[in-house]
Amino acid sequence: MTKKHSWKHRLHEIIYEADTKEGKLFDVVLLVAIIASILLVMLESVNSFDEKYHNYLNICEWIITILFSIEYILRVISIKKPLRYIFSFYGIIDLLSTIPKYLSFIFIGSHHLVALRALRLLRVFRILKLTRYIGASNTLLVAMRASKAKISVFLFFVVIICIILGTIMYMIEGAANGFTSIPRSVYWAIVTLTTVGFGDIAPQTPLGQFIASIIMILGYAIIAIPTGIVSSEIAKSSKDENNTQACPNCLKEKHKNNAKYCYNCGSVLNE
Amino acid sequence: MTKKHSWKHRLHEIIYEADTKEGKLFDVVLLVAIIASILLVMLESVNSFDEKYHNYLNICEWIITILFSIEYILRVISIKKPLRYIFSFYGIIDLLSTIPKYLSFIFIGSHHLVALRALRLLRVFRILKLTRYIGASNTLLVAMRASKAKISVFLFFVVIICIILGTIMYMIEGAANGFTSIPRSVYWAIVTLTTVGFGDIAPQTPLGQFIASIIMILGYAIIAIPTGIVSSEIAKSSKDENNTQACPNCLKEKHKNNAKYCYNCGSVLNE
Amino acid sequence: MTKKHSWKHRLHEIIYEADTKEGKLFDVVLLVAIIASILLVMLESVNSFDEKYHNYLNICEWIITILFSIEYILRVISIKKPLRYIFSFYGIIDLLSTIPKYLSFIFIGSHHLVALRALRLLRVFRILKLTRYIGASNTLLVAMRASKAKISVFLFFVVIICIILGTIMYMIEGAANGFTSIPRSVYWAIVTLTTVGFGDIAPQTPLGQFIASIIMILGYAIIAIPTGIVSSEIAKSSKDENNTQACPNCLKEKHKNNAKYCYNCGSVLNE
Amino acid sequence: MTKKHSWKHRLHEIIYEADTKEGKLFDVVLLVAIIASILLVMLESVNSFDEKYHNYLNICEWIITILFSIEYILRVISIKKPLRYIFSFYGIIDLLSTIPKYLSFIFIGSHHLVALRALRLLRVFRILKLTRYIGASNTLLVAMRASKAKISVFLFFVVIICIILGTIMYMIEGAANGFTSIPRSVYWAIVTLTTVGFGDIAPQTPLGQFIASIIMILGYAIIAIPTGIVSSEIAKSSKDENNTQACPNCLKEKHKNNAKYCYNCGSVLNE
Repeated sequence: MTKKHSWKHRLHEIIYEADTKEGKLFDVVLLVAIIASILLVMLESVNSFDEKYHNYLNICEWIITILFSIEYILRVISIKKPLRYIFSFYGIIDLLSTIPKYLSFIFIGSHHLVALRALRLLRVFRILKLTRYIGASNTLLVAMRASKAKISVFLFFVVIICIILGTIMYMIEGAANGFTSIPRSVYWAIVTLTTVGFGDIAPQTPLGQFIASIIMILGYAIIAIPTGIVSSEIAKSSKDENNTQACPNCLKEKHKNNAKYCYNCGSVLNE
Repeated sequence: MTKKHSWKHRLHEIIYEADTKEGKLFDVVLLVAIIASILLVMLESVNSFDEKYHNYLNICEWIITILFSIEYILRVISIKKPLRYIFSFYGIIDLLSTIPKYLSFIFIGSHHLVALRALRLLRVFRILKLTRYIGASNTLLVAMRASKAKISVFLFFVVIICIILGTIMYMIEGAANGFTSIPRSVYWAIVTLTTVGFGDIAPQTPLGQFIASIIMILGYAIIAIPTGIVSSEIAKSSKDENNTQACPNCLKEKHKNNAKYCYNCGSVLNE
Repeated sequence: MTKKHSWKHRLHEIIYEADTKEGKLFDVVLLVAIIASILLVMLESVNSFDEKYHNYLNICEWIITILFSIEYILRVISIKKPLRYIFSFYGIIDLLSTIPKYLSFIFIGSHHLVALRALRLLRVFRILKLTRYIGASNTLLVAMRASKAKISVFLFFVVIICIILGTIMYMIEGAANGFTSIPRSVYWAIVTLTTVGFGDIAPQTPLGQFIASIIMILGYAIIAIPTGIVSSEIAKSSKDENNTQACPNCLKEKHKNNAKYCYNCGSVLNE
Repeated sequence: MTKKHSWKHRLHEIIYEADTKEGKLFDVVLLVAIIASILLVMLESVNSFDEKYHNYLNICEWIITILFSIEYILRVISIKKPLRYIFSFYGIIDLLSTIPKYLSFIFIGSHHLVALRALRLLRVFRILKLTRYIGASNTLLVAMRASKAKISVFLFFVVIICIILGTIMYMIEGAANGFTSIPRSVYWAIVTLTTVGFGDIAPQTPLGQFIASIIMILGYAIIAIPTGIVSSEIAKSSKDENNTQACPNCLKEKHKNNAKYCYNCGSVLNE
């Protein structure tokens, strides 16, 4: 039994961890397979391409499906608590991106589920952790988390503004000018405030254009707020390159993290 | 009379304050009612939905109207100076979002006033104060207030630029290319400078496109200004270098957090 | 002669300076007149409005023209070196925004020059100097000047990128898809990179859309550069609230500019 | 032979370096020629202009081609390792922007290669180095390099988000509403997230508009991230806290500007 256990243990190490050479190799192969599978889904969705190479695409689709099936089974086998994996976010994504091809025998139209495979791309971030980008993404994450509350308040404020302004625009412009309902007007207000500006709906009355101008200038000005929030958070989180230790001899502060001697008097610092 | 007073007092506590359990509950119920009422107005404005479920929506509308009426009456009763509430910003909003249904018996077309109900969403910010987001929204408010003067100067500058550039574009492009009047050209200049770009009006002549390019690059560059302003203000206000303690001797405020003595008169500060 | 000189001197004080009560009043009246004249030009450009009230607008236009004429003559009379004013930027603007009505007797079509009056709005900034916004606009100006070189390099870089990408898009999309010439393609590249996106020209081929995607993501990322530049400049220029003086007793630094006593040990600071 | 060598050496100095007066002159003349050649290509691409002045443009094109040919030959002759230049990035660009006119005798359609000449504009940056903008562009470059890792992680994140959201929108909206394939939907997601918003494709279903709203607000919020990154990097690099001096004992670099002793080994630094 020890052998089997060690075999499972080894598999777990390869699939779920990335410290060993095999683990890293597995992650890279998986990443390539995911990207290939997404490219496949993309190509299938292009009609002109699908008509020409339908058979080739179908074969590739089966290869990917079988590979993902094997991976899914290995993941379930090698983990100690399979149910925890199966009902985890990644577990559900993995299953949903594997089964559509099998389901297509039973149901017609289940094919669209294949597109969910794009969500597997999120696994990339796990693999990124192993690279030199870990520091960069950590700084970003720390800054994101620190500014979460402020960004939430801001986005909440933006949504309320859009509901109010969208409702006002619905009253001013009316259905004749494309503002057929309040939800649609709110959608337009979001399109405008975020400076996207599709132009599928645009105000026609002078008063509507005046209020639209205010919304646009508002959007142009308040984009400064999330930027300001994140800027100051990133500045803070990347400031931590100096520590706050004071030199035991001259009491100068703000030494570099890797400093062994005081930059001012040359005496030895405490580790 | 003491009893009645205490009953009024208690009602006031529940409706206007949020320190007690009942007060918090009232605020949450009110918030849910406001959101429900707005969703209702939105659904009514969608023609296809309104045609199917007109009766249900009408009943819901009456329930909301009656609830808001009761709330409005209670607010007037429980406050010491009812007129001050009635003519306050929130008082007017509350009235305007309650009466349209009653008015619809007398006037046809008053229905649109219902949309003003969206303004009641602003009450949300009062309720937010009670949550953990108070700190976040305070930092934002402080930064907003501190940068108000600079942002005003900036927006003023943007408006002047848009008037000048809009006028120039009117002269260059003319009515044939959609720039039918100066206000419309100024509207276009705002759409372009703020990088919204609806595309309902677009320059057709080479010279017009050249000036449009300059406007766009200008807009792309000067968006940096409000961002820079807010960034530095948020950075400042989140540094918390100054506390709000007043010197017990000279009443000067804004001492540094680590200050032991008043920087103005030299007397000892309270810890 | 002294009397005349003093009369001229007084006029100069009122028109060109703003220290006296009369000078401030003149500036405010002038500002109101400028805004009125611009509103007038705007209303005239709206066809439906001009048809109805042509006579009234014509009378107002003559009043404004006469007022501006008087102002122009007074400006020329009251200054010591009239030629310097006449050929200065403001002098030319003032003249050009005054004469079109007179010229309309001689030439037809000179009416459009009236629109140049919008440039007179720039005078507003002179008047702003007198208000509490002076500090705010100064900080902005200092930051602008400090970041001029960096912003120039950045905009230069943006223009080169747009020329290169516009040329490439011309080769890929061609005249059939709206990219009729290289200047037009460069115009499109600017519209896209600055995230304006009118949509009057849009790539149709897959390769064109792919490159457009790269342009858009590039534009989305490099907008960070001017923002970063201005942010750090504003942060620097508003940091100067603390001076670098060290306390003569405890050597603590970073005292407030208005501090008289050390915030750490309470001893008197040097003025 | 010494004479020839010194002649070559002198030519090399003029063409490849810019320390001498002749070198600077050469760079300026080259820059003017490049700009002229690009203007020429642009004008040729404008049909109405090309029809009128085809002959003049053709002559100018030949003059530019001959000048560039001479420059190319001189560059190859004067350098010690001609192959290194010929196969360098600039070498290939120089060749490709010179030969199309010759090729047009042999192949029809090779004319479009002329547009590659726009890439020669990149040489401008070499010339910029000589001006007072060198400091500004260096600060920018340092900040760019320092934030490369973080910006990469961010852009990678943006691309993944766009693939996922594009796929979801393809499933919701479908080919009937313009989302004809997944690549096209991903293109739309990029257009929307970067707040460009052409409007050539726009969601029609309520659910699609709801998700589009989320994408837009997301794009509006996450633009803060690159801005924050670059801001803090520019703030850091313009603070000049560290100098580039290497410790004479241990060769560690990046000492603080006010450092008297090496932070790593404690030995005295040069003033």
